[in-house]
Amino acid sequence: MSSYPIDSVGLVTPQRMAFNTPLPLACGKSLAEYELVYETYGELNASASNAILICHALSGHHHAAGYHSEDERKPGWWDSCIGPGKPIDTRRFFVVSLNNLGGCHGSTGPSSVNPQTGKPWGGSFPVVTVEDWVHSQARLADALGIRQWAAVVGGSLGGMQALQWAISYPERIRHCVAIATAPKLSAQNIAFNEVARQAILTDPDFHHGEYNAFGVIPKRGLMLARMIGHITYLSDDSMGAKFGRELRSERLNYDLTSVEFQVESYLRYQGEEFSGRFDADTYLLMTKALDYFDPAARHDGDLAKTFAAVQADFMLMSFTTDWRFSPARSREIVNALLAARKGVSYLEIEAAQGHDAFLLPIPRYLQAFTGYMNRIEVD
Amino acid sequence: MSSYPIDSVGLVTPQRMAFNTPLPLACGKSLAEYELVYETYGELNASASNAILICHALSGHHHAAGYHSEDERKPGWWDSCIGPGKPIDTRRFFVVSLNNLGGCHGSTGPSSVNPQTGKPWGGSFPVVTVEDWVHSQARLADALGIRQWAAVVGGSLGGMQALQWAISYPERIRHCVAIATAPKLSAQNIAFNEVARQAILTDPDFHHGEYNAFGVIPKRGLMLARMIGHITYLSDDSMGAKFGRELRSERLNYDLTSVEFQVESYLRYQGEEFSGRFDADTYLLMTKALDYFDPAARHDGDLAKTFAAVQADFMLMSFTTDWRFSPARSREIVNALLAARKGVSYLEIEAAQGHDAFLLPIPRYLQAFTGYMNRIEVD
Repeated sequence: MSSYPIDSVGLVTPQRMAFNTPLPLACGKSLAEYELVYETYGELNASASNAILICHALSGHHHAAGYHSEDERKPGWWDSCIGPGKPIDTRRFFVVSLNNLGGCHGSTGPSSVNPQTGKPWGGSFPVVTVEDWVHSQARLADALGIRQWAAVVGGSLGGMQALQWAISYPERIRHCVAIATAPKLSAQNIAFNEVARQAILTDPDFHHGEYNAFGVIPKRGLMLARMIGHITYLSDDSMGAKFGRELRSERLNYDLTSVEFQVESYLRYQGEEFSGRFDADTYLLMTKALDYFDPAARHDGDLAKTFAAVQADFMLMSFTTDWRFSPARSREIVNALLAARKGVSYLEIEAAQGHDAFLLPIPRYLQAFTGYMNRIEVD
Repeated sequence: MSSYPIDSVGLVTPQRMAFNTPLPLACGKSLAEYELVYETYGELNASASNAILICHALSGHHHAAGYHSEDERKPGWWDSCIGPGKPIDTRRFFVVSLNNLGGCHGSTGPSSVNPQTGKPWGGSFPVVTVEDWVHSQARLADALGIRQWAAVVGGSLGGMQALQWAISYPERIRHCVAIATAPKLSAQNIAFNEVARQAILTDPDFHHGEYNAFGVIPKRGLMLARMIGHITYLSDDSMGAKFGRELRSERLNYDLTSVEFQVESYLRYQGEEFSGRFDADTYLLMTKALDYFDPAARHDGDLAKTFAAVQADFMLMSFTTDWRFSPARSREIVNALLAARKGVSYLEIEAAQGHDAFLLPIPRYLQAFTGYMNRIEVD
């Protein structure tokens, strides 16, 4: 008897795929060999026409739904959207979710061994871009016998991968679902990333990315990076509603180091918890992938031209209080797709939770998401 | 022959005032003795009815206008608003601008010697609040023979001091000019301050605030704090207009440490420059003063009640793209003043520059500011 909720994909076991054909990267280097860790939910149908690829965001990984064991406290990071009867319905779809190259959850990344040196890559792991990821994901699709995805789906940095799929492999993706994303970062977005990176790079325990060799981790830098990130994931309103100016204890301490307000306590906890579980070199790589994403750059900044050859249908969703990737950024994409005469649905969802909303079970969001996914045809 | 612009107050010399009556502080401690550094521009009239107090913001100081020497490259921080023919016209007004207690520009602060120990205060300097500052400024007014200010004027944290003046000393202020400010910080505002503080507090060179004794400064922490602050001073739009995604060199470097975009280069420069000239303990104190400001807390959060006894007329100004202290925050103050049946003018100024706008010579802003100040009566 299973103890998992009936709308859960239940127990899942991560799988691993090794690749030996060198992968050329945007930076000019190439990865001679690499492994990708992934999970699947549901069953691939006979025509392999029901496969969905999930792309993760900055701190995400392959574990998107279900549980790794009965002891696991929380399910995968997008469990609210993947499972029987959920927007990505595993009774209809075969879902693939991977950890991207450069990650710290099992796929080849900074903590893996560089076969050329016999030592961990550390800070010398090559910079990987959204486009590099999409190429690596295409090879995973080949290996799994998936010629064409029914849909590629992602939020935030994951949404960028979904867009890049439509651009790089027009014939291999029928639907592109890009949520709370942007066609490229704004100067402010890059600025926040840069502060996070500087926090890590200037931590004396960073040791040029070779901290593992020194038996330390740049905990302070990672903590600060996460605190900054976290502020940008929430809306001013949602922080206000959640914490306001609520005090941690009844009286103010009036000193420089005490935590006075609940919001400070929350942020410190988030930062510390994250610094214990995430790799600093991976954090740097992920922020760089965000910064570099700019598919229109190759077309003189013309996004409509960039989409000229895409064949997929698009579903874009954004959230009203998301100031990291605001609705205006999604509308840039929608307008470019319309100008390129592509099929596109767009929904701006009223939600107080800021950028984080894409991870949350907001009824209007789940309903629209479900509606779109249900209309995707599978043989 | 002077080489200063004709609308400049010209050469100014900072002055210093010592106080020996203990100043009780909100934290429960008191300062037995202290000094305030200040500058004055213009002439105090016979009835002392033309005095204007300038209150500075987080990283400000007493040097608001004019030049300390002919070699000085840049004039005081608010030179665009103070001088002959400028909004605060020194042909009419006698202007007083001080460095607040806890500052690092000459007034008693962390780098001053604690008379009880004979050593610099460092991290043990007592936490000072906006209210403490206002009390210390009232004593400075006493010493200068100013019974009542024609106006107390400030932007941002300076605006909070102007508001507090109207509340704490209703009979000593005829006009309160509060620009780009808020009645209290939001959770998001506090969160940004907390990240900045954590950057400093976790810098190994901080040494519990006693870095001077160790011959170091927490440069990394201060740099990060300033970078974070700087992002919140600018609008997304103004960063976009100023930097966009402009590259620093023609080609991308595709590595983790290079500066790729102009905005990164700008932020690093701002951070590094600041870390060499500002004191870390003072930075902590200033952010705490911001966090603690909440004059309505004593009136169950009712801002209208808080203003019940004020006698000043108010002028509030805000800037459309300021997301640190948005127009909505100024409107909270305006609405409370209206509910309390006080005289208030309010102007929301179209400006792309974000919070920084209050320091900039924006025509509509200077015009409205001038208009209000010109209507202030002096004997």
